[in-house]
Amino acid sequence: MSESIPHWLTKQANILPNYPAIELTDGTHVSFHDLEINSLSYARKLAAIGVEKGTHIGILSTNCLEMVYTIHAISYLGAVGVLLNTKLTDEELNFQLDDADVNILITNDRRNRNLRVKESYTFQQLETMEESSVSLQFHINFDDTFTIMYTSGTTGFPKGVVHTYGNHWWSAISSALNLGLNKDDKWLISLPLFHVSGLSTLMKSVIYGMPIFLMKKFDESMVHHAIMEKQITIVSVVTVMVQRLLERLGTENYPNSLRCFLLGGGPAPKVLLERAKEKGIPVFQSYGMTETTSQIVTLSAGDCLDKLGSAGKPLLPAQLKINNPGSDGVGEIVVKGPMVTPGYYKNQEANEKSFKDGWLYTGDLGSVDEQGFLYVVDRRTDLIISGGENIYPSEIENALMKMTEIKEAGVTRMEDDKWGYVPVAYVVLHSEITKEEIFAFLATQLAKYKLPKKVFFVEELPRNASNKLLRNKLKEL
Amino acid sequence: MSESIPHWLTKQANILPNYPAIELTDGTHVSFHDLEINSLSYARKLAAIGVEKGTHIGILSTNCLEMVYTIHAISYLGAVGVLLNTKLTDEELNFQLDDADVNILITNDRRNRNLRVKESYTFQQLETMEESSVSLQFHINFDDTFTIMYTSGTTGFPKGVVHTYGNHWWSAISSALNLGLNKDDKWLISLPLFHVSGLSTLMKSVIYGMPIFLMKKFDESMVHHAIMEKQITIVSVVTVMVQRLLERLGTENYPNSLRCFLLGGGPAPKVLLERAKEKGIPVFQSYGMTETTSQIVTLSAGDCLDKLGSAGKPLLPAQLKINNPGSDGVGEIVVKGPMVTPGYYKNQEANEKSFKDGWLYTGDLGSVDEQGFLYVVDRRTDLIISGGENIYPSEIENALMKMTEIKEAGVTRMEDDKWGYVPVAYVVLHSEITKEEIFAFLATQLAKYKLPKKVFFVEELPRNASNKLLRNKLKEL
Repeated sequence: MSESIPHWLTKQANILPNYPAIELTDGTHVSFHDLEINSLSYARKLAAIGVEKGTHIGILSTNCLEMVYTIHAISYLGAVGVLLNTKLTDEELNFQLDDADVNILITNDRRNRNLRVKESYTFQQLETMEESSVSLQFHINFDDTFTIMYTSGTTGFPKGVVHTYGNHWWSAISSALNLGLNKDDKWLISLPLFHVSGLSTLMKSVIYGMPIFLMKKFDESMVHHAIMEKQITIVSVVTVMVQRLLERLGTENYPNSLRCFLLGGGPAPKVLLERAKEKGIPVFQSYGMTETTSQIVTLSAGDCLDKLGSAGKPLLPAQLKINNPGSDGVGEIVVKGPMVTPGYYKNQEANEKSFKDGWLYTGDLGSVDEQGFLYVVDRRTDLIISGGENIYPSEIENALMKMTEIKEAGVTRMEDDKWGYVPVAYVVLHSEITKEEIFAFLATQLAKYKLPKKVFFVEELPRNASNKLLRNKLKEL
Repeated sequence: MSESIPHWLTKQANILPNYPAIELTDGTHVSFHDLEINSLSYARKLAAIGVEKGTHIGILSTNCLEMVYTIHAISYLGAVGVLLNTKLTDEELNFQLDDADVNILITNDRRNRNLRVKESYTFQQLETMEESSVSLQFHINFDDTFTIMYTSGTTGFPKGVVHTYGNHWWSAISSALNLGLNKDDKWLISLPLFHVSGLSTLMKSVIYGMPIFLMKKFDESMVHHAIMEKQITIVSVVTVMVQRLLERLGTENYPNSLRCFLLGGGPAPKVLLERAKEKGIPVFQSYGMTETTSQIVTLSAGDCLDKLGSAGKPLLPAQLKINNPGSDGVGEIVVKGPMVTPGYYKNQEANEKSFKDGWLYTGDLGSVDEQGFLYVVDRRTDLIISGGENIYPSEIENALMKMTEIKEAGVTRMEDDKWGYVPVAYVVLHSEITKEEIFAFLATQLAKYKLPKKVFFVEELPRNASNKLLRNKLKEL
């Protein structure tokens, strides 16, 4: 039987009415009471434009309060939110709107879009609506679908990942069991709410009764200022954000109130983790994806400085195994747990490929050491097979990042007549250095077959909205 | 579908192998790794004496490591632990052993007992067994029964409260969402593990990955010393313990590491809570019972000093309502939530009486103020809470009525400086008998803590029109 609990936001509004639920950079505080009132009002206004139980409603928005109200509002209606990436082209969005059966769109996007959706409303238009006297649902059923979110899949068509309320609940609980849950916690989100890292933190806020510090987007100066002045305890980050924040930090130190940088979005260069360690910043490496409702494997507090480079162990309710490991122990990462999506929306083929006996076959590569720590080697699509040898881009990037002259590095593959594929590197420089010097240094670091065939100097690297490196876009530079 | 997660102890043994799971007053530390190894060994030895999936095994023990190993061991076997109160008489125990279908008993009890159970083993005897090569279960299914624990009812016959793994999980999680979960938490238990407050904390230890400081019994000097010296952060207490600890504390103060006295077992005198407040001790009042797997309503951190006298608000996954409130708002407390027992073991009548549409009718009286804070007015008018132990007048009355010389018996409570309340008995005689003879007989029938402090001979008992005993009028005699 599916678990059913009282609505989490209404509950927090009852338990902690005056406690801040959301803080913005402009100093705005929204209490749990006000968050509930506004979300209920949004629910009744959404009902007025025809949203009801089961409606698939598109949400195309950068981080803002109105987006937060909309997300909670749909949970009072039993509607399903399809969260859309604002950086996508019309063509990409139309694919998702169509695939997810969206007829109504809510947006703060001001671009002159040409989207194939029956009705579209801005938040401002929605707010002018009369509230409908619809009956709302004040319970949350774990098996019900809450959101659909498309994976940034590098090949083929994007897949709509279904998240149930139970997925979000278990994700929040398993994170709390790992990171702890301090009564003064305040979590900073600068990642978009239309990605799982942002959305899952928004859910933690109402499940824990914890304020989140919500930023429109990542800006290292604003994040730096917030950590220094706003008693932030946890920050969700990806590698490039840590790099920029460390640079911004310079010789300063963060206050003791900061207890965790939760690092997602792929393996980080060891040299960067070491630099953070030197500065006393507790970076918790994690492994997860949209399908696992954010982290499913995280390095625990006690291990975060001793096991640099590992993503940790599967969280309490999760399991992990390595499928078909090679002689080096590296194989496909396979995971299971109640935070794992029940599947891709209306995508039988993808579901059959990815799910077997309740296990999710991630396509990512990794190994597990004797103590059970996961080391993510690379995302499978990034794997470069060269003359029968496996080459992992991250290994080359790590080597490049050891050079102080190099600010950022990205590696991808290039077709080669002799080897099938060879790696090529794209680097952003801090200070001047020649390609010869780079090759000379790499030769001291890497086996010959791993050396990039070419190095390109570029102004910046292609990244998605969560600042994750898009290796497959490197070639377009 | 019932949720299934990896075995919590095995998981903690993997995540935090060297972290202390249990600390004893003699300085012994048992790591999660050793706790798992010993519990698995116990499981295989229990299998050797015939315990298997579904076996009901009695556990009659004061707090000790062997009891802890046994409790975890049964979870690897899928057996059901029937936790028995060591203070009970043979007659009381035999009722429970029989009612719960127990054939095998494990005990550290050295009294010359005459128990009706097929096989009985001391921990020492168990430890000499050869381990059986049985296949153990490394998953926990939330709907499976884990333990049975007896609570007395108004009719006098104790009822076996079934606790599933899910009850324990949700109890632990809802407590963490309220109290927070600090990475340095260490929870002191001096209450018996055969009571729900002790057992639920033992489960928190393996669900959180948190050490517990386990004491054989409550001793104010030892608890005082532990709080002062052992970095205890949370202590489970009942009123009488707070009184004694405050006396022992005198002019000293507890270290800042202490963050919570979790107070259960009935409403506490306001004057005591005020004294604790003056000493800066955060006493979290709570409301719960065996049927709710400990607390289901707790005052949150932010309110604990401002709402003295309230038991707080229902924890996140729980709901509460007041049935048939009078003009003063006081009515029966009715609760619902995933930590509530699925029911009493093989007791259709009690289940029909207590459970309706998933709600538990507690029989306790209380009211809820405008902000939603619960004020427990009284436990079932006939319940006597004496030093944290529940005593049901009807149980004592039933014992008295076994004496042919006694025609009628009524039991109520009397205030007591040391225990909070103690039972007193009023009897109408058929034929002559001395009070000494009555006390001597009761000693063979009832646990010592249940023996009435005084016996009064009266002409008749106060009854209402339908001849129901009015216990609250007894004192007027």
